[in-house]
Amino acid sequence: MKIKPLGDRLVLKKVEAEEKTSSGIILTGAAKEVPQFAEVVAVGSGIVDGKEVKMEVEVGDRVIYNKYAGTDVKIEGEEFIVLKQEEIVGVLVD
Amino acid sequence: MKIKPLGDRLVLKKVEAEEKTSSGIILTGAAKEVPQFAEVVAVGSGIVDGKEVKMEVEVGDRVIYNKYAGTDVKIEGEEFIVLKQEEIVGVLVD
Amino acid sequence: MKIKPLGDRLVLKKVEAEEKTSSGIILTGAAKEVPQFAEVVAVGSGIVDGKEVKMEVEVGDRVIYNKYAGTDVKIEGEEFIVLKQEEIVGVLVD
Amino acid sequence: MKIKPLGDRLVLKKVEAEEKTSSGIILTGAAKEVPQFAEVVAVGSGIVDGKEVKMEVEVGDRVIYNKYAGTDVKIEGEEFIVLKQEEIVGVLVD
Amino acid sequence: MKIKPLGDRLVLKKVEAEEKTSSGIILTGAAKEVPQFAEVVAVGSGIVDGKEVKMEVEVGDRVIYNKYAGTDVKIEGEEFIVLKQEEIVGVLVD
Amino acid sequence: MKIKPLGDRLVLKKVEAEEKTSSGIILTGAAKEVPQFAEVVAVGSGIVDGKEVKMEVEVGDRVIYNKYAGTDVKIEGEEFIVLKQEEIVGVLVD
Amino acid sequence: MKIKPLGDRLVLKKVEAEEKTSSGIILTGAAKEVPQFAEVVAVGSGIVDGKEVKMEVEVGDRVIYNKYAGTDVKIEGEEFIVLKQEEIVGVLVD
Repeated sequence: MKIKPLGDRLVLKKVEAEEKTSSGIILTGAAKEVPQFAEVVAVGSGIVDGKEVKMEVEVGDRVIYNKYAGTDVKIEGEEFIVLKQEEIVGVLVD
Repeated sequence: MKIKPLGDRLVLKKVEAEEKTSSGIILTGAAKEVPQFAEVVAVGSGIVDGKEVKMEVEVGDRVIYNKYAGTDVKIEGEEFIVLKQEEIVGVLVD
Repeated sequence: MKIKPLGDRLVLKKVEAEEKTSSGIILTGAAKEVPQFAEVVAVGSGIVDGKEVKMEVEVGDRVIYNKYAGTDVKIEGEEFIVLKQEEIVGVLVD
Repeated sequence: MKIKPLGDRLVLKKVEAEEKTSSGIILTGAAKEVPQFAEVVAVGSGIVDGKEVKMEVEVGDRVIYNKYAGTDVKIEGEEFIVLKQEEIVGVLVD
Repeated sequence: MKIKPLGDRLVLKKVEAEEKTSSGIILTGAAKEVPQFAEVVAVGSGIVDGKEVKMEVEVGDRVIYNKYAGTDVKIEGEEFIVLKQEEIVGVLVD
Repeated sequence: MKIKPLGDRLVLKKVEAEEKTSSGIILTGAAKEVPQFAEVVAVGSGIVDGKEVKMEVEVGDRVIYNKYAGTDVKIEGEEFIVLKQEEIVGVLVD
Repeated sequence: MKIKPLGDRLVLKKVEAEEKTSSGIILTGAAKEVPQFAEVVAVGSGIVDGKEVKMEVEVGDRVIYNKYAGTDVKIEGEEFIVLKQEEIVGVLVD
């Protein structure tokens, strides 16, 4: 069972702060306390009110998002965040 | 007696959190406390101020919606929520 | 003496919650406490700032409206609510 | 000395709640406590930012307006309210 | 030394409430406590973001303005208010 | 080292209230306590979101600005304010 | 590992207030307490909702930004701020 996000929304899965990132980085300190890093697991169509919003992130991207943004959802024991793309401030690149 | 939602509104019927979903999933924990899962029972025309808002959900869809959104209505002992489509963040798919 | 609502406003007359509706339904519980059901008694021209807002409800419709919306008015002992159509979330249909 | 209202504003003179209206109605109860009934004594040009707002009320109309709207002004012992037409919710008609 | 107001702003000089107006009216009561009457002493060009806002008041007009609007300025012992024309609700006419 | 303001922003340098202005005026009282008088030391390009905002003030102008507007910056012991032109209410002229 | 800012966002790296700037200036006082000076380390595409926002700052620019703006991010022990260009009030130039 998955969530299909509507419009310009994304579904994110929180990245455990203690987890080593693919580039070998250990996220530290403040990041651990407020883990704003997440992985994109689903991307909406980008259609909002009949206009297309260009979706700039892809499934698999690791992103930084605004605190308190979006809706928390728990499915089968896993936690997800559904939010609008405008809440994504940047993508982590190696 | 039914509710015909106006404009880009939908009528939702709350899904009991302990109920097994069609895909056999048991919704747990936080979901039980704040059951934000609901089933669409009616869809408005999508006409708002003479413009058409594309309705992206259908009757029967199980959706996730923003907490505190919409208007609660009780008819013949059943509880419904009437809200605008923009309050729907995603659709559950198998 | 009547109220002619301006623009896209409507005049509603509250429906007594204990009253049996035309379809024989007895509105219960929460509905009694916060009677958000009302009957449309007058419909404005729909002209707002020179543009026409399509009026989707008619005199006689039983509607559900947002709590706290509009202006309460008492004339000759009867209570009315004057509100904008956007505060109507749905129409009751049999 | 009079007030010429600017733009889409109106000047209203409060109607004493105990006063009998022209149709012989005695306004009662809540209306007395919060006399939202008033008579239009001046109507602005309707020109706002170079665009024309259609003025839908005329001098002499008895109107219902939103509580707390507008600016109270006292001239030669008489009290007036200057407010924008959008604060008028309806006109009393016989 | 004078103030040249920018855009659709005006410079007003407060009218002493006890002062007799040109039409012989003595402004009373509430007006004395909150003297919202003022005389226009300078009018801006009306150009805001490259568009022209029609200036509807002239130097010498006695106007009524919204409480708390604008910026108070004291120059050479005299007090002025600089505010946008939209804060003027009406002009006093004889 | 200077500040180049972006868009329709200006850099102002506060005018000491006790300082005699070029026209010989001594700014007094309230002005001393809240010195909202300042001299323009830099003017932005006026380009905001690809559109041109006409810059109506020039370097050297003495201006009056809204209290609490803008960002205070201290460079080499001197204090500056960077704010948008819309926060300037007027220019002092002789 | 770097942050690629989305849309019209920038990534800034705070400038230590006690650090001597390239022009030999020692930033003092208030600046030390609230170090609003930062160096641009990454610039977004400028595409927001399909429209291009002209990016007016470049990597390497030292900028002044609004307090409390943006999202703080800590990566590999270094602190960054991701914010929209409109939060940049000016660029330091020699």
